[in-house]
Amino acid sequence: MFEIEKCCPQSKARAGRILTPHGEVPTPVFLPVGSKGPVKTLTPEEVREIGLSMVLANAYWLYLQPGMEVIQNMGGIHRFTSWEGPILTDSGGYQIFSLSRLSRVNDEGVVFRSPIDGSKHLFTPEFSVEFQEELGADIIVALDECPASFAPDEVRRAVDRTSQWAKRCCEIHKRGEIYGIMQGGLSLELREMSALKLRELPFDGYAIGGLCLGETREEMLSVVERAANFLPSERPRHLMGVGSPEDIVKGVSLGIDIFDSALPTRVARNGSLFTMKGRRNIKNSCFRFCNQPIDPGCDCYTCCHFSAAFLHHLFKCRETLGLRLATIHNLRFIARLTEKIRTSILDDSFSSFKEEFLSSYHPTDEAIRLSQRRRWLSQAGAKMLND
Amino acid sequence: MFEIEKCCPQSKARAGRILTPHGEVPTPVFLPVGSKGPVKTLTPEEVREIGLSMVLANAYWLYLQPGMEVIQNMGGIHRFTSWEGPILTDSGGYQIFSLSRLSRVNDEGVVFRSPIDGSKHLFTPEFSVEFQEELGADIIVALDECPASFAPDEVRRAVDRTSQWAKRCCEIHKRGEIYGIMQGGLSLELREMSALKLRELPFDGYAIGGLCLGETREEMLSVVERAANFLPSERPRHLMGVGSPEDIVKGVSLGIDIFDSALPTRVARNGSLFTMKGRRNIKNSCFRFCNQPIDPGCDCYTCCHFSAAFLHHLFKCRETLGLRLATIHNLRFIARLTEKIRTSILDDSFSSFKEEFLSSYHPTDEAIRLSQRRRWLSQAGAKMLND
Repeated sequence: MFEIEKCCPQSKARAGRILTPHGEVPTPVFLPVGSKGPVKTLTPEEVREIGLSMVLANAYWLYLQPGMEVIQNMGGIHRFTSWEGPILTDSGGYQIFSLSRLSRVNDEGVVFRSPIDGSKHLFTPEFSVEFQEELGADIIVALDECPASFAPDEVRRAVDRTSQWAKRCCEIHKRGEIYGIMQGGLSLELREMSALKLRELPFDGYAIGGLCLGETREEMLSVVERAANFLPSERPRHLMGVGSPEDIVKGVSLGIDIFDSALPTRVARNGSLFTMKGRRNIKNSCFRFCNQPIDPGCDCYTCCHFSAAFLHHLFKCRETLGLRLATIHNLRFIARLTEKIRTSILDDSFSSFKEEFLSSYHPTDEAIRLSQRRRWLSQAGAKMLND
Repeated sequence: MFEIEKCCPQSKARAGRILTPHGEVPTPVFLPVGSKGPVKTLTPEEVREIGLSMVLANAYWLYLQPGMEVIQNMGGIHRFTSWEGPILTDSGGYQIFSLSRLSRVNDEGVVFRSPIDGSKHLFTPEFSVEFQEELGADIIVALDECPASFAPDEVRRAVDRTSQWAKRCCEIHKRGEIYGIMQGGLSLELREMSALKLRELPFDGYAIGGLCLGETREEMLSVVERAANFLPSERPRHLMGVGSPEDIVKGVSLGIDIFDSALPTRVARNGSLFTMKGRRNIKNSCFRFCNQPIDPGCDCYTCCHFSAAFLHHLFKCRETLGLRLATIHNLRFIARLTEKIRTSILDDSFSSFKEEFLSSYHPTDEAIRLSQRRRWLSQAGAKMLND
């Protein structure tokens, strides 16, 4: 149930709507990550007030904790978390394969050990779909094999297996919508092959997976550009794991409708706050006496109520309220950004909006970004527990 | 500016009002602790919605972080923290003397080292008053010497010095209201001497300090009973550091009007939640499948929106949202308790309310409470940084 309202004449950008049983989602849209239920530090009410319409939950984490029995007993993920809007669940392929305690993958499925207690579990494509449906998600994602590197053989094998699993997911799928997930690493040939296989199946949308694994931003965007072209234009395209302001703007221009990422909330908890000129670290001593909001043009709860000096103080003395106020600010920044993108597509000004935004917004230095990302990935097993 | 509206005929309990430049405070009242500005995990808006009218901030902590310059630059503590209601600042005598890096106390004042960076500072009674006035607090508390033990010589010396300091505090005091603080440990003779000295001075209210230092609950209450009698009945009486539900109910019956304590918020962050029957630990596996609120009779935000099973899940996977939801619940429990106490005094039913409450509420086992308290005190230097 995806309607395209308007396409940008100068780029692949489009504005649309996804209709779900829990409400309408205007696109382009960013989904905040509520891996284990809540978006970290926030109540569902705050997420709604920020202007975010759909949340991404993670089937892998919810399966491990609190487990299906608990959520079933509560009548599903919506009632359990008190979030009344649409929910998309990620199958957790990325998490299974990026956690190091993976035991074995074969055609049947993947056996892995819980990073929480070391217990052994099997996810098959069928189980993944059934589990996500039982959670009561509005949109579910097929189980994929997400290779941990760009080694050609590994990527090729992952494309094959992901295609076979996609078929099995579609066969067992009964309820709500299901998105297929494309693999293929940095190879355009494999991306195309993956897309062709997925297009044979009745998916309601398509996710682009297997990126943000330590490649450069240019590599990532160049793959997204081609990958999006391989996918049908009448279905929503979801770029998984992407969430920096600059990547969202560029991704939209390449035809992406849905983004999700823990980046805005994770960097917020480190004190890194979005402004129209780029990220600012609130712990920097230049904010000690700043009695203005961190971003004077921002309409978020944090900027409307608190000075940068107060936020600086909270981070300096490690008050957890600071984590929340920073999270609210960054998510509102992203929500406003996607609202502005959408409005500009609808009124035919996206190209100039994009140009203007990218000329004033200074992204994090690529070398720093890459080294942070790679360090984060290398510690993924432990880090994932916090993300 | 304290008006007594009604006195209980069967006990020393009374209902009244404290008038401040930032609004009226109905008593008996509990002040949540916002040592470094915010009540831990909460926005000012949440504190107000919980029904708490006055907040306690700590001059000692605010002096160390962010320091006077920052707060002055923001136009005072109210604008800095965005809390628009009344604020009482504690001088921080308790913190100075319970932190182990204390250097030296003499008649002039106390020299201490910051537990944050080891830097050396001097607090004199005059400085303490001026600093609290510059913060813009509605009510300030005189600087006291709070002995770290009940050793008779130490307590006697502290009473003498606290009396001398009280005089100097009154002399320099210019703005708002100032409360004197009584010492005397567990000695009734010294408590009386302390009270007599304070009563000679034009204090607007009186705080009872030097308790909650590892004595038993019976010792504490028996001192409070006599100490309250030594203080003038027409002024508010503040029992510092007391905040368990059972101690509040008993304290009111002994003539206490104001309570403050980090206990409700600290135990909340450990998962210990108040119910009408006593504390419950949300991490207990009995809550795993509990699809009722933690306290079905509670009207707090947490109980109105979330099941005990969801809170249990948040604590199990260490989501910081859990700390906030638990804090909201415990503070609302205390706010409702003081509201009920006040109503019962006004309609002449306090004695039966007290009896009923104490017969259904099972306090934490005294032996466990004492050992926890003593362990906490012995680690005070490190712990204080988190409280």
